Amino acid sequence: MKATAQAHPNIALAKYWGKAPGPANAPAVPSLSVTLAGLTTVTSVELDRSLPADRLTINGRDEDATRVTSLLDRVRREAGETTRARIVTTNDFPTSAGLASSASGFAALAVAARAALGLPFDPTRASDLARRTSASSARSLFGGFVELDAGDGTDRDLPAREVAPAEHLDLRVVVAVTTEAPKDESSTSGMNTTSAHSPYYAAWLEHAPRLYEEVRRALLARDLDALGAAAEASALAMHASAIAAGVVYFRGATVDALAEVRRIRASGTSAYATIDAGPHVKTLVRAADAQAVAARLAAVPGVLRVLVAAPGPGASLVADR
Amino acid sequence: MKATAQAHPNIALAKYWGKAPGPANAPAVPSLSVTLAGLTTVTSVELDRSLPADRLTINGRDEDATRVTSLLDRVRREAGETTRARIVTTNDFPTSAGLASSASGFAALAVAARAALGLPFDPTRASDLARRTSASSARSLFGGFVELDAGDGTDRDLPAREVAPAEHLDLRVVVAVTTEAPKDESSTSGMNTTSAHSPYYAAWLEHAPRLYEEVRRALLARDLDALGAAAEASALAMHASAIAAGVVYFRGATVDALAEVRRIRASGTSAYATIDAGPHVKTLVRAADAQAVAARLAAVPGVLRVLVAAPGPGASLVADR
Repeated sequence: MKATAQAHPNIALAKYWGKAPGPANAPAVPSLSVTLAGLTTVTSVELDRSLPADRLTINGRDEDATRVTSLLDRVRREAGETTRARIVTTNDFPTSAGLASSASGFAALAVAARAALGLPFDPTRASDLARRTSASSARSLFGGFVELDAGDGTDRDLPAREVAPAEHLDLRVVVAVTTEAPKDESSTSGMNTTSAHSPYYAAWLEHAPRLYEEVRRALLARDLDALGAAAEASALAMHASAIAAGVVYFRGATVDALAEVRRIRASGTSAYATIDAGPHVKTLVRAADAQAVAARLAAVPGVLRVLVAAPGPGASLVADR
Repeated sequence: MKATAQAHPNIALAKYWGKAPGPANAPAVPSLSVTLAGLTTVTSVELDRSLPADRLTINGRDEDATRVTSLLDRVRREAGETTRARIVTTNDFPTSAGLASSASGFAALAVAARAALGLPFDPTRASDLARRTSASSARSLFGGFVELDAGDGTDRDLPAREVAPAEHLDLRVVVAVTTEAPKDESSTSGMNTTSAHSPYYAAWLEHAPRLYEEVRRALLARDLDALGAAAEASALAMHASAIAAGVVYFRGATVDALAEVRRIRASGTSAYATIDAGPHVKTLVRAADAQAVAARLAAVPGVLRVLVAAPGPGASLVADR
C-alpha cells in the first residue's frame, strides 16, 4: 500500500520540443538524453482509503495534484483499484526551474505508483506510463544514454529505451545554475505557443530528427566533439524555434554562460552547451576537464552555483523508511 | 574636389537578413526602417592626386578602405574620374557595435562621394549606390520611415524610398547600449552563416515579407501597438534564424533588457523591443513614455547608458568647414 522510488533528471542531447498530433502525449520528434547521477527525486505513494482525492506534497508544500492524478488513474485502472493516494516527493535540486525536475518526478512517481498498487517493477511499462503525463520523464526510467521515438499519431505504447550504458562515454555535465526560482513559463506552455505561432516550427520538425541522428551516431562512436556540436545545435535550434514565437527561456546569465562555453571551446577544451526550457546552461565536457570548466562557469556573473553530474542510473524502488 | 555629408543610422522595424541571389548585394526580403535623429555620422571625401589608394579614417583611426573603395569606384566610373580620395568619417555614437554605424556611414559616404566627384545631390541615386556596398545603408538616405524592396536577382537599381515622414508617428526609440565594444561578428558574416547553415533560413525568407506587410500596415494606420508587436516579432524571428545557425548577437544584458521591455509592456505601457545584429536593445515607445522607459532600462544591470532618439532626417550635404 506504500512504495517509494527514486529517479534522476535527464538532459536531452537531442531535444524534444512539440507534441505529435493525437491523444497520447507523444513527442513530435525523436530525442536522446543522458540521465544524471547526483540530482535525485525521491517519491513515495501511499494509498489511503480516507482520502477523497490524491494529495501531493513537493518538498514539504502542498501542490496541485492534477497531473499526478492523471498518471495514478492509469495505474489504478490497470490494477483494478480506486483508492486515492498521498504522494510525497522531494528534490535535492531546484524544482520546475529547467533542471528536469518533472522528468525525474514523473519517472519516480510511475515506479512508486505501480509498486504501491501491486504491479511488478517494469521500467518499460513505467516509461510509457510516465510519458503519457510528461514525455521527457519517459527517459528518466533508464540510466545512461536513452532515446525516445517520436509518436506516430496513434495511442500505442511509446516507452523510452537505453541506447548505451552510463559508462559508455567519458562525459560530465557541468550545470550552471542561474536562478533558484521556478521558470515563468512551463515547457508545455512554451511548446504549445511554439507549435501554434512559431514561423520555424515546421522547419524544426523537419530538422530535429537529423540532429537526433547526428547525436546518436556520435554517441555510438564515442566522439564527444561530434556529440557536443550536434547537441549544441539541437539546443539552439529548439530555443530558436521558441524565440521566433516570442518564447524566451534565456536569461542574461544564460547567454553569458553560453558565450563562456564557446570561449572555453575556442581555447581548446572540448565543451559544448545545451539548454533546456529554462535558464540554466549545461555543459558537456570530458571528466578530466569538468573541474576547470566548472570554475570558469562559476565565475560568470549571474551564475549562482555550478553542479557537476556524471551519467547515472535509471529509476528504482527504494526501501521504505 | 571635397565634399562633406551627414547621415543618421536607421533601425529596421521589419528586418532585412540575408542577401538575394545575384551580384547586386540586394536584400532577400523587404525591410522597413525608421531613421534616427540625434546619432550622426559626418563624412568628408577629398580627392587627392598624390594618393596611390583611397585612405580611410574613422574617428581618427586609419581603417581598411576596401568597402569604401568599392563604393567610390562606382562613383568614379560614373564621373569618368580615377583620382583616389581621403575619406574622413566621425560617428558620435559607438562604431560597428550594432548601432547601424555602417548604415549612416555608407549613406553619408555616398552623398559626399557623389558631390566630391561633381555629381548632383540625388538621394535615390545615392541610395542605390550605398545599397550596393551596405544594403541597410540605402535606407539612411531618407528621413522618417523608409522601405527597401527585396532584390529580384537582377542588377537593376534598387534604392530605398520614404513611406512616411518623421512626424507621421508619435514614436521614440530608446536605445539601451550594452557595450561600447565592436561586435564580434559583422552583419555580413552572420548573414552568410545564417543563409548557409540555419535550418530556419528558408522559413525566414517566407515569413519576413509577412512581417514587413504587418509593420507597413500598422505604420500607415499610425497604430504603435500593432507596429511594435510586428517589429518585435520581426527582430526575434531574425535573431532566431541566426541562433539556429549558432550565430548569437545577444549578450546577457540584451536578454535582460528585452525581459524588462516585456515587463514594462505587461504593466500597461506600450513598449516593444527590436534588436539588430548586435547586443543593444532598441525600444519603441510613445514620446510621452520615453523618459520613464529610459529610466527603467538604464536600471537593468549591464545596460551602460540609454539614448532616446526621435525619427529624423535623411542624409544631406553639409558646408565644409
